[in-house]
Amino acid sequence: MTGLPRRRLLGFAGAGVALAGAGAAVGALSSSRPSSDQVRLTGAEAVPFHGEHQAGITTPAQDRMHFVALDVTTTKRAELVSLLQEWTEAARRMTAGQEAAEGGAVGGNAQAPPKDTGEALDLPPSALTLTIGFGPSLFDERFGLAGSKPAKLIDLPRFPGDDLDERRTGGDLCVQACANDPQVAVHAIRNLVRIGFGRVSVRWSQLGFGRTSSTSTAQATPRNLFGFKDGTNNVKAEDGDALREHVWVAPGDGPDWLVGGTYLVARRIRMHVEIWDRTSLAEQEQIVGRTKGVGAPLGQVAEFDPVDLHVKGKGGLPVIGATAHVRLASAEHLGGVRVLRRGYNFTDGSDGLGHLDAGLFFLCFNRDTGKQFVPMQAALAAGDKMMEYLEHNGSGHFAVPPGVREGGFWGDTLFT
Amino acid sequence: MTGLPRRRLLGFAGAGVALAGAGAAVGALSSSRPSSDQVRLTGAEAVPFHGEHQAGITTPAQDRMHFVALDVTTTKRAELVSLLQEWTEAARRMTAGQEAAEGGAVGGNAQAPPKDTGEALDLPPSALTLTIGFGPSLFDERFGLAGSKPAKLIDLPRFPGDDLDERRTGGDLCVQACANDPQVAVHAIRNLVRIGFGRVSVRWSQLGFGRTSSTSTAQATPRNLFGFKDGTNNVKAEDGDALREHVWVAPGDGPDWLVGGTYLVARRIRMHVEIWDRTSLAEQEQIVGRTKGVGAPLGQVAEFDPVDLHVKGKGGLPVIGATAHVRLASAEHLGGVRVLRRGYNFTDGSDGLGHLDAGLFFLCFNRDTGKQFVPMQAALAAGDKMMEYLEHNGSGHFAVPPGVREGGFWGDTLFT
Ligand code: HEM
Ligand code: HEM
Repeated sequence: MTGLPRRRLLGFAGAGVALAGAGAAVGALSSSRPSSDQVRLTGAEAVPFHGEHQAGITTPAQDRMHFVALDVTTTKRAELVSLLQEWTEAARRMTAGQEAAEGGAVGGNAQAPPKDTGEALDLPPSALTLTIGFGPSLFDERFGLAGSKPAKLIDLPRFPGDDLDERRTGGDLCVQACANDPQVAVHAIRNLVRIGFGRVSVRWSQLGFGRTSSTSTAQATPRNLFGFKDGTNNVKAEDGDALREHVWVAPGDGPDWLVGGTYLVARRIRMHVEIWDRTSLAEQEQIVGRTKGVGAPLGQVAEFDPVDLHVKGKGGLPVIGATAHVRLASAEHLGGVRVLRRGYNFTDGSDGLGHLDAGLFFLCFNRDTGKQFVPMQAALAAGDKMMEYLEHNGSGHFAVPPGVREGGFWGDTLFT
Repeated sequence: MTGLPRRRLLGFAGAGVALAGAGAAVGALSSSRPSSDQVRLTGAEAVPFHGEHQAGITTPAQDRMHFVALDVTTTKRAELVSLLQEWTEAARRMTAGQEAAEGGAVGGNAQAPPKDTGEALDLPPSALTLTIGFGPSLFDERFGLAGSKPAKLIDLPRFPGDDLDERRTGGDLCVQACANDPQVAVHAIRNLVRIGFGRVSVRWSQLGFGRTSSTSTAQATPRNLFGFKDGTNNVKAEDGDALREHVWVAPGDGPDWLVGGTYLVARRIRMHVEIWDRTSLAEQEQIVGRTKGVGAPLGQVAEFDPVDLHVKGKGGLPVIGATAHVRLASAEHLGGVRVLRRGYNFTDGSDGLGHLDAGLFFLCFNRDTGKQFVPMQAALAAGDKMMEYLEHNGSGHFAVPPGVREGGFWGDTLFT
């Protein structure tokens, strides 16, 4: 890696600290009720870019996200490959807190366009991760990739209640940028788009202002816009067995180039918060199957008490009802199926009808979407009372290649 | 004030600290190159709600913003007044880090809808400020306010190049929420909208992810999406004379009810960043009139060196050219006119044409919009080379009432 970091870190003892260390520090700082601001006290460091898996999946979920789906506009395979190589080099640099390319915003030839757009010049790495995915459409005739298409990279079925907007659906490629400073996430996506000029164009994008899932046992559970803790019963980074079983593509699963990778499902879910806000607390808790305050499963006391679907209440009916979200989405109900959730809250202006356009940008990673996300979402779409308050209006499915080795590039196992 | 704070602050020495103190702490922490993350180290405290002026104007600009423009749907003056009273009580509580009403998300009757939506339950005050404004349309026939309309609350003229979108323009009321945690700002707006159900409806709203102006000498200057430092030559909170001259409505200026208030102009400015990014560094610096790296005026060395419009370069031409942004917007060029800028960067998905929809949500406060913002924007619209990269597509003008006394309510000087 060349060039100076964008800035020297002042006052951050944690700079460059490995992730486990950062997670531990968060835990120590805030054992009982950490806030998102406290998490940020250790949120300025760099997250390693290289590894067996891409960062941004089991990385403790950062506070902010910018997600972009792109279409490839060139039809030349060589141009696609060189784009992925240039992107990887820029991603290596930006995740380390450097500018997108040597010379950067102000250090190059003044008569040429700068090689970095500059808006992150004074900002630390902020735990930026960049995670790439390949959509089903990338494997059509254009780039000779049809033979390498993973059989599991299916077109998602239409679920009951889906109200998908073409302008928020699909994409040849996606990049998920997560960081603890939104300006750093937006800067990264914007520079990748800039580098891709003439070869890719933006299909849709989504800004998430607040993480709505924890992905590490060291993180406090954040809240979604229904006001409930979200991510309590998530697959966590510390649970290696669960990751192997539910998240990482293993040898024999599908194409060899995807081993160590995973599948990403994105769903833009509008939440009709005005209607939810007029529902009683008791009804809200029935719908979720957990209490709103501490987030305990109904029938239990503390947030991390195990969900017990068999506890009976007055009248012999299960305390966690037949239409409760945590019942229908549970591994027990679904024959062992789980996914790693990594979503973000959003608000995108208003809907023209007097309401805020707010919701949850649901992101999950799984090893076989057809056997994990699909039956889970099918169960929710069919029976979840929460669906009355939701509208799925954006969707994407992407194969996420494995992590990049030093000297390698995003997707090199597919192209070489 | 009643009820417990949403959470006990852990590890924040600055809780409840007055603003001057918080500003000083920021300055001490980060004398040379503070980052937005460092500013947040002291960004969890509460900002006092009561005072001579509303908070959120000279308050050191927080990192995140949610702005909403609303239409009043009731036609009863009494309902409008009681709404303003209820809003004020909720604003008092939320800016202090409490839930929107006693009982809150989980402490009330379980058979009734909760009195707070809950998504900020574990979060500290985060320097939340809530600032209300009254649009020209509020002073029509509906509420008997026509006689109290400030003569200076003009309908803004159409400027050359304006491309205003009806759906992002106007509004009877506006509320600007600024905070160092976006979830806190979004929570506040959402709860005010909830409280207003049946009396107001959302006309438009805008999320700003990064502040793009400093409003205090203790703050580092942030960068906008053109990569330039923005706010260097702003009117600052510490300059009482400038505030009196350019920002606060004084006795004799206009209606008495507005003394201690000001006027807010909002402009949603799309920035064509893709075109900008293909412009050379030299050209970019000519357009702004400052260097991109340190932000020094052309012809000078350091960021805070005074702008000198008379320095000549090779060929005897002024170094800061005739079409430079800082020349055309300067007090010297405009006969002494200044405004207090308080804008935010935004990205709202994509434009359907392959580009990100990104820009600057320009907010400024001034004492007489017709004599300050209007000639300034007219000069820029006519001569600023930067306009080639901009598109003004949203706009609003609001009279901002003075600060609220203990026991008073937003706008009480207008209604009583
Ligand atoms: C806006 C939409 C949604 C909201 C507000 C929501 C909210 C929640 C909440 C509050 C919990 C309980 C806390 C936890 O364990 O994380 C939960 C659990 C869960 N949700 Fe969702 N969710 C949404 C959509 C989805 C979707 C689309 C899926 C997958 C198709 C999903 C899958 C799950 C799973 C697997 C659990 C854990 C269940 C268990 O206890 O085993 N959720 N959700
Ligand atoms: C996207 C649109 C805009 C961008 C990117 C932008 C950018 C900048 C930059 C980089 C500076 C120099 C640093 C500073 O002193 O703050 C500046 C200065 C300034 N801008 Fe803008 N600006 C924009 C729109 C506007 C508008 C709409 C107005 C008012 C109508 C305005 C008024 C000013 C003023 C008064 C100054 C200070 C000039 C001086 O006295 O030195 N700007 N702007």
